[in-house]
Amino acid sequence: MERKKIVVVGGSAAGAKAAAKARRLDEFAEITLIQKTAELSMASCGYPYYIGGVFNDRRELLCSPAGVVRDTTFFAKAKAIEALVETEVVAIERAAKLVRCRRVKTGEEFSRPYDTLILCTGAKARRLPVPGHDLAGVTTLLTMADTDYLRAVRDGGTVRQAVVVGGGLIGVEACEALHRAGMEVAVVEALDQVLTFLDRDLAMLVENHMRAKGVRVETGKRVAEFLGREGNLVGVRLADGAVIDCQVAVVAAGVAPNSDLARDAGLAIGPSGGIVVDAYMQTSDEAIFAAGDCVEIESRISGAPVFAPMGDLANLEGRVAGENAICGRTVTFPGTYHTGICKVFDYSAGITGLSLAAAAKLGLADCRAVVNAGPDKPNFMGGKLLVSRILVAGPERRLMGFQCVGPGDVGRQVATAAMAILGKLRVEALVHADLPYAPPYSLAIDHFIASAHIMENTLKGRMAGISASEVWAKLQKGERPFFIDGRTPQEFEEMHLGIGEQLIPLGALRSRLAELPADKDAEIICFCKISLRGYEMIPILRAHGYRNVRVMEGGIMAWPYPRKK
Amino acid sequence: MERKKIVVVGGSAAGAKAAAKARRLDEFAEITLIQKTAELSMASCGYPYYIGGVFNDRRELLCSPAGVVRDTTFFAKAKAIEALVETEVVAIERAAKLVRCRRVKTGEEFSRPYDTLILCTGAKARRLPVPGHDLAGVTTLLTMADTDYLRAVRDGGTVRQAVVVGGGLIGVEACEALHRAGMEVAVVEALDQVLTFLDRDLAMLVENHMRAKGVRVETGKRVAEFLGREGNLVGVRLADGAVIDCQVAVVAAGVAPNSDLARDAGLAIGPSGGIVVDAYMQTSDEAIFAAGDCVEIESRISGAPVFAPMGDLANLEGRVAGENAICGRTVTFPGTYHTGICKVFDYSAGITGLSLAAAAKLGLADCRAVVNAGPDKPNFMGGKLLVSRILVAGPERRLMGFQCVGPGDVGRQVATAAMAILGKLRVEALVHADLPYAPPYSLAIDHFIASAHIMENTLKGRMAGISASEVWAKLQKGERPFFIDGRTPQEFEEMHLGIGEQLIPLGALRSRLAELPADKDAEIICFCKISLRGYEMIPILRAHGYRNVRVMEGGIMAWPYPRKK
Repeated sequence: MERKKIVVVGGSAAGAKAAAKARRLDEFAEITLIQKTAELSMASCGYPYYIGGVFNDRRELLCSPAGVVRDTTFFAKAKAIEALVETEVVAIERAAKLVRCRRVKTGEEFSRPYDTLILCTGAKARRLPVPGHDLAGVTTLLTMADTDYLRAVRDGGTVRQAVVVGGGLIGVEACEALHRAGMEVAVVEALDQVLTFLDRDLAMLVENHMRAKGVRVETGKRVAEFLGREGNLVGVRLADGAVIDCQVAVVAAGVAPNSDLARDAGLAIGPSGGIVVDAYMQTSDEAIFAAGDCVEIESRISGAPVFAPMGDLANLEGRVAGENAICGRTVTFPGTYHTGICKVFDYSAGITGLSLAAAAKLGLADCRAVVNAGPDKPNFMGGKLLVSRILVAGPERRLMGFQCVGPGDVGRQVATAAMAILGKLRVEALVHADLPYAPPYSLAIDHFIASAHIMENTLKGRMAGISASEVWAKLQKGERPFFIDGRTPQEFEEMHLGIGEQLIPLGALRSRLAELPADKDAEIICFCKISLRGYEMIPILRAHGYRNVRVMEGGIMAWPYPRKK
Repeated sequence: MERKKIVVVGGSAAGAKAAAKARRLDEFAEITLIQKTAELSMASCGYPYYIGGVFNDRRELLCSPAGVVRDTTFFAKAKAIEALVETEVVAIERAAKLVRCRRVKTGEEFSRPYDTLILCTGAKARRLPVPGHDLAGVTTLLTMADTDYLRAVRDGGTVRQAVVVGGGLIGVEACEALHRAGMEVAVVEALDQVLTFLDRDLAMLVENHMRAKGVRVETGKRVAEFLGREGNLVGVRLADGAVIDCQVAVVAAGVAPNSDLARDAGLAIGPSGGIVVDAYMQTSDEAIFAAGDCVEIESRISGAPVFAPMGDLANLEGRVAGENAICGRTVTFPGTYHTGICKVFDYSAGITGLSLAAAAKLGLADCRAVVNAGPDKPNFMGGKLLVSRILVAGPERRLMGFQCVGPGDVGRQVATAAMAILGKLRVEALVHADLPYAPPYSLAIDHFIASAHIMENTLKGRMAGISASEVWAKLQKGERPFFIDGRTPQEFEEMHLGIGEQLIPLGALRSRLAELPADKDAEIICFCKISLRGYEMIPILRAHGYRNVRVMEGGIMAWPYPRKK
């Protein structure tokens, strides 16, 4: 029997997974894994935690769960895969079905034939084309080399100030790592918020938390120049002229698909620059598959091809590519629901599906969203805050998006929502979900179910909500609705917004209706700490004839703007 | 307008929720909440954590999230609900539509008319009808009074030894509480495992953990007598004659619906003793609703009525009953997927849907289950073990059950699975789920997705598994399959089963095939720490002609039996 020749280009998540899957499906295939750098199977999502000193053994980034470093010997012995490291694939000769390779260190060139080729060339960091971008001290955070550099900076202990350019996932993770390493950190983001997968109001809660940790967060600011002295970075000048002193700068301005090899070989490339693949992860050449950060996959929300450079998806795509490379077109990869999460100091920020902003951009019909704030478990079990926005759309009111930020257990919330979206569940199903409850894990009515309850109440017209950002916009326009803070005087004393609100504790509302505007059409906005009491005020006020009553969703806990106290 | 009279009997989870929901839907209804004990809205699931000293302020069990004790004043002011505490409803006069009440302290009797009655009378603890059950020191753990008693025992500091009778949810929570309070604890369970909602092999992992914490766990043992001296408990005698010294005993032998009031009034009662309600939570009398631990609800798995006394369901049922009491039959409660979770020291144990044992009892057709063991997140982020059994059934291979135990993040896993069951998801959907991944939260391929991968591989015939319990049964019968432990010598040295296994590291397997049985039909069982390497051995051995090769699911981490080292 002829042994099938499989060549995999790229030995990180997708490539290593594809090669291993192919091996398990064909013990006798000749499988070659070609990797430009020295390392294989790097846990690249772990880089920031190594840089920050969450753990200190570099080998852990390269180990199997059993603690064996996944080097060429490991691949040879455990997987019977020939891994060629420090070897670059410089061209694909599709007609001849071979890849031309070059040893990085020696420049030696050679070719490898393939029956099936799998491209897992990953992503490349976007550079910032401003003066000084090549100064020593300016780096990206994408590769093991970047990681080694930043870890050395940490261990050196001499760098005191760092700037992170970009407030996306990698930017905030880099920020936390450098802060943990003892540096003063500033994050400069050109857009008007960090973590643009979130709606701005929720992102602002994250920014507030970063500032509370001592990070300088500059949104809506562009870097004009990296300033150097004798070739070394000494600062960053913003477009507005401000200068931030720093000795290291991490450019985290996004990544792009590393698809040059595929493009040069004439494979179809999509609008995002990613390699075009079908659901079988097959490229426009049927002998070539591709997977991971170099491809475009389908958005399961919009159906459009998207660039989704996530480590979990890379693994799942690699698994599909590896199987189809051996078995033919047998399994498909369905795409992404845009699920993601990141840690930002004591906060987590996650999403699955659409933010309100993303839904608006898509022109999603009949879309409704509400904010919910509340603890993840009972206060007596050390409950921590979660602030979420749940979004449903269409006549069936299907769940289409769920964002969640806060110090609470965001991972569980977003995982729950992700499965609900996958199950195409409607609000009426979510409100009665049977989730695992005990006080160490959740509230009796879990935050996610409570979010669905608020949505149901909104859809039934029982809850009329207004978001903090809409309230803020009203205030900026000079509008002065009648605000009721429904908390106790003690709570008010500890903290309050100071937006002209009247303090009327929920328990006193029925006896203090005389203090409300005489005009039953006056705009009244109620809130409390998390707006549960605020919500309870609505039916009381409506029953007494007030026709224009709303609750500020999420209450003070979801308010990202300055407050008086 | 005539004001609607709503009477709610029972002021804990379901009752308080029903009354509050009714109020929000009708500001002018006359709502009365009648409660036999002094407290209202008790967070009864939190009792064990107060007893154990996880928190020390009793008020926290009775507080709103804002820290206000939910007493009669709170209900009057915030909810405009008249709460009658220390008041027992002794009879329902259905024809006259009134409840007859008695003040617990004074014996004073009076009646209350209702238009709609909502029964939320909860559950009662099963007693153990053995000699000595009325000794001082023998208690249950169901009520606030039980809780106050056990907390006083803890604070007294004189009790050194405790026995918990029953190893169910309340039993293990009581065990942990008493252990935390500094006592030596023994758990006596009549059945052959604790936590009978789990399959026995997973329950044994929990038992092992309890023993590792110093708890004496006696399964398959019955209590014959509580031994006393001068009216005080001094020990427990088991049916086998063994005596366990103790000064306090918590009888956690299960609960039963507290449906006497309903039964006496002639309402339909189901086989479990619970009040029969339809999906609207309406009893056999259309003027009477019921919710919480006193009713039977529908199993969403079997369709049969079941008794499911869980705090989260009680709240959801109460919400439905409260709405229908005001609005008529408008919303339905769909029932339960038997989801549950509990903390057992550093372990958690949870389930949604069916265990293998429960599926067998139901006679579920075409059912497949596999065990998966692995960390919840990367080792470098402090990953902790999870051991799960995933179960699918029917020609569509829908997820029908997921159990998970271990020190890892069981709550997220079970919540994920619960939504997948609700979404009626098939294995082919689960393998590509888009869950929130970053190293602080999960593996790149989340444990739940990995479980689905193992199931997929099993269904495709690529993985042939055998559970630890099946292996153990073989060994007990004297069978001696050829076992291969695929780990490294160092790992073997640290820990091994000692069941006659050969140590052949995965990386050496291809070169050591000569050490295997010559007979290609010989039974070979591979494993490693979590049986990932064990699984990788299968295709290698098959490719070399071995026809009877299986992997022991979950490896050593899922092995609950004694091991040599």
